[in-house]
Amino acid sequence: MKEILDVIIVGAGSAGLAALREVKKRTQRFVIINDGPWGTVCARVGCMPSKALIEAANAFYRRTTFEEFGICGASHLSVSIPDVLQRVRRLRDDFVASTLKTTEELGERAISGRARLLAPDRLEVNGQELQARNIIIATGSRPIVPSSWRGLEERLLTTDTLFEQETLPARMAVVGMGSIGVEMAQALSRLGIRVAAFSSNQTVAGLTDPQVNAVATELLEREFPMYLGDKADLNAVSEGVQVNAGSTKIVVDCVLAALGRRPNIDNLGLETLGVTLDQRGMPSVNPGTMQVADLPVFMVGDANDQVALLHEAADEGHIAGLNATQSIPVCFNRRAPLAIVFSDPGIAVVGNHFQPLDSAKIRVGEVRFDRQGRARTGQRNKGIMRLYAEAESGRLLGAEMCAPAGEHMAHLLALAIDRSLTVQDMLRLPFYHPVLEEGLRTALRDLAAQLPAGSESDLATCSAFNSEALD
Amino acid sequence: MKEILDVIIVGAGSAGLAALREVKKRTQRFVIINDGPWGTVCARVGCMPSKALIEAANAFYRRTTFEEFGICGASHLSVSIPDVLQRVRRLRDDFVASTLKTTEELGERAISGRARLLAPDRLEVNGQELQARNIIIATGSRPIVPSSWRGLEERLLTTDTLFEQETLPARMAVVGMGSIGVEMAQALSRLGIRVAAFSSNQTVAGLTDPQVNAVATELLEREFPMYLGDKADLNAVSEGVQVNAGSTKIVVDCVLAALGRRPNIDNLGLETLGVTLDQRGMPSVNPGTMQVADLPVFMVGDANDQVALLHEAADEGHIAGLNATQSIPVCFNRRAPLAIVFSDPGIAVVGNHFQPLDSAKIRVGEVRFDRQGRARTGQRNKGIMRLYAEAESGRLLGAEMCAPAGEHMAHLLALAIDRSLTVQDMLRLPFYHPVLEEGLRTALRDLAAQLPAGSESDLATCSAFNSEALD
Repeated sequence: MKEILDVIIVGAGSAGLAALREVKKRTQRFVIINDGPWGTVCARVGCMPSKALIEAANAFYRRTTFEEFGICGASHLSVSIPDVLQRVRRLRDDFVASTLKTTEELGERAISGRARLLAPDRLEVNGQELQARNIIIATGSRPIVPSSWRGLEERLLTTDTLFEQETLPARMAVVGMGSIGVEMAQALSRLGIRVAAFSSNQTVAGLTDPQVNAVATELLEREFPMYLGDKADLNAVSEGVQVNAGSTKIVVDCVLAALGRRPNIDNLGLETLGVTLDQRGMPSVNPGTMQVADLPVFMVGDANDQVALLHEAADEGHIAGLNATQSIPVCFNRRAPLAIVFSDPGIAVVGNHFQPLDSAKIRVGEVRFDRQGRARTGQRNKGIMRLYAEAESGRLLGAEMCAPAGEHMAHLLALAIDRSLTVQDMLRLPFYHPVLEEGLRTALRDLAAQLPAGSESDLATCSAFNSEALD
Repeated sequence: MKEILDVIIVGAGSAGLAALREVKKRTQRFVIINDGPWGTVCARVGCMPSKALIEAANAFYRRTTFEEFGICGASHLSVSIPDVLQRVRRLRDDFVASTLKTTEELGERAISGRARLLAPDRLEVNGQELQARNIIIATGSRPIVPSSWRGLEERLLTTDTLFEQETLPARMAVVGMGSIGVEMAQALSRLGIRVAAFSSNQTVAGLTDPQVNAVATELLEREFPMYLGDKADLNAVSEGVQVNAGSTKIVVDCVLAALGRRPNIDNLGLETLGVTLDQRGMPSVNPGTMQVADLPVFMVGDANDQVALLHEAADEGHIAGLNATQSIPVCFNRRAPLAIVFSDPGIAVVGNHFQPLDSAKIRVGEVRFDRQGRARTGQRNKGIMRLYAEAESGRLLGAEMCAPAGEHMAHLLALAIDRSLTVQDMLRLPFYHPVLEEGLRTALRDLAAQLPAGSESDLATCSAFNSEALD
């Protein structure tokens, strides 16, 4: 008689491995199946190698502040792109190795192959049929590349191939100004590559607040030209690739496509689940349980096309791992939304985006960093932060920013929003001096002035008890 | 008949100006008196010029990472100390100018001169007697210099004179390893000056956790020698200054004294208040009201020798300004303690220090940054963070750290401690990937493992209401 497993996990990326961690604690009757290279997108071609590239680029770019600081000789600095990329791969290999440990020790329970669903409790891999009480689909995603661009061959890069290059050419186009496009365009430009950036959107990096978008766009355009609002067409020409967008025609040596990622659900057999699929071929997935309809099937990480961020993928894997090993799926409250783009200044959206908040029901507090004291001492005085609070209650609802130390202030605001804190609550915080967070305080005070009058002091008066304690 | 003022503020530093802001809103019958240069210690000789120096030093020091990043030519970089100091003064002048605006527009209500109390409601300045219903003493502090060192003349610097130098010599000793000593010793060393550091304490930068102190000390000692545990004696010799401490004898060109600051209360006439003074000559000051005993006299900022930090001085001035303009003084809850040293990695203490917490009643969570992913991509992977939580409740009590982005994580933890959050509450926070805050999460998880078992997930399960909302 054929063994019926408790859980099959399809995909060993960040979501699949998070599911595995929970499943392993509760049953040994599981397998994990992976197609293609083992190791997560994050470690192989995503978060980690991109951050290694960005850090090198920012270190090199910092030379533009040297003369003002009193440091001489910046003109003698140069960067070796092959050396930068070699370091990126050296670090990447180490990060990948640490993700591989978990699956290597599983022996036969880790299967290399492409799985195809046959029913809600059955799938086929390598010509073999497997049955399980629960299936977790964590097949990830891949970069979107329009089929008409495929003919460009090695002149078209994605994040799958960028970090594999021995070196990079003098002229590059980056198409798509979402998070990855912005990060890579700025880093490549800071490494001395002549970058031209294109996007069919007028907004960059997922921003929805026109004022934050305007500042972010202006700051990025100081470093490299951006052509926004027109769809880019690519054509191979003898000298490289011609990019046409609206009236712009630019020839570059190669193009980085950063058009987003597509879930890996083709030929996965989702139609065998017997539930309605939308026009993308995607079933409905409950974000609180990760369950597909009422089936013992869970869909997590980039594969479900909900929020393609590592920390969300890990949470989704965790939820599915728990729910696939208990009789009744439990619904979890997801965390406060947080999205960070590792540009300089850092772009971040916390909690609610500005749009579609109802402008009649919110108040907006703003700070610009041009004159902020600490930022000026470090020559990082550029950027903007806008905070959104509920007009009636003063509760913080969200923030968008392009600001120095943005990634850190985004975490501070995420905690505030997660705890439903008000503007007055936040003004209770000690803001040290001189720190960039004092800029955040300026935005909070700007908000406080627009809200129904609170007390005349940030500092709450003592209760009788504390008052005595102080005497 | 002589006018009786509502308020006299003695001292126009950060505390005095904060008091002025509140007083001005409520009465025009006030004067503010200042001895010596107008402009705050913070802007003139403290926070701001020191940060400008540190930023230049860190920018220059970053060259030590260049080869590993793939950047060539670092050996051609040099730093011009005169240029660094000129920029420091240029920025400083601008910061000072902005603090002067407030008092310049006061006309005759801003008096230059040294005040001396005659009674709780009277003082003398420039031979003239003034009377007021309330007096706010905000006379600030000055660097401590042992009288036996005065003979060293221009070979002895303090932060009052350091930033005024045209250039700096090749060899310097820094005596005192509190916050200012650590910041300046590291910055001067990073600017290429051969620094030797001395302290009679075994701990640096106000740390009390032996493990954090050990890491901080070890990291600083990689950059310059520190001689801890012996009192330093200074003697003028023909080549400069000989520093003797225990068995160490080192000759330097000049010495920066960083032994802390002494409140400016000498000859202030505090004895005329008719209250008991302690052996330092200091009356007792209520930290909730800033009131001296039950007198209409308030003592704020560095002058009261409580917490000599700008944000505390500003709060104290604010409280005194409110209390000096209403009939009954109100007691305020002070903010969560926060102290930051702007070294690299950053040193910070949030909430309770490790000592004197009762080790039987707390649990300690720890993370080291040597292997932290994001820190490695930026070559900032050194340091430690230790968190203290109440064993019974899991409530966060405090933290000490020497960690990359320490100043930012300190603010995140200050918010958590101010809101009485538990370790589990903090694990609800979205931690983006890859960020240094994931190191903080590691320390939180280390703590969670030592606390009474919580739920099996950081993610709270949905309430019925939310569960429906997600469907």
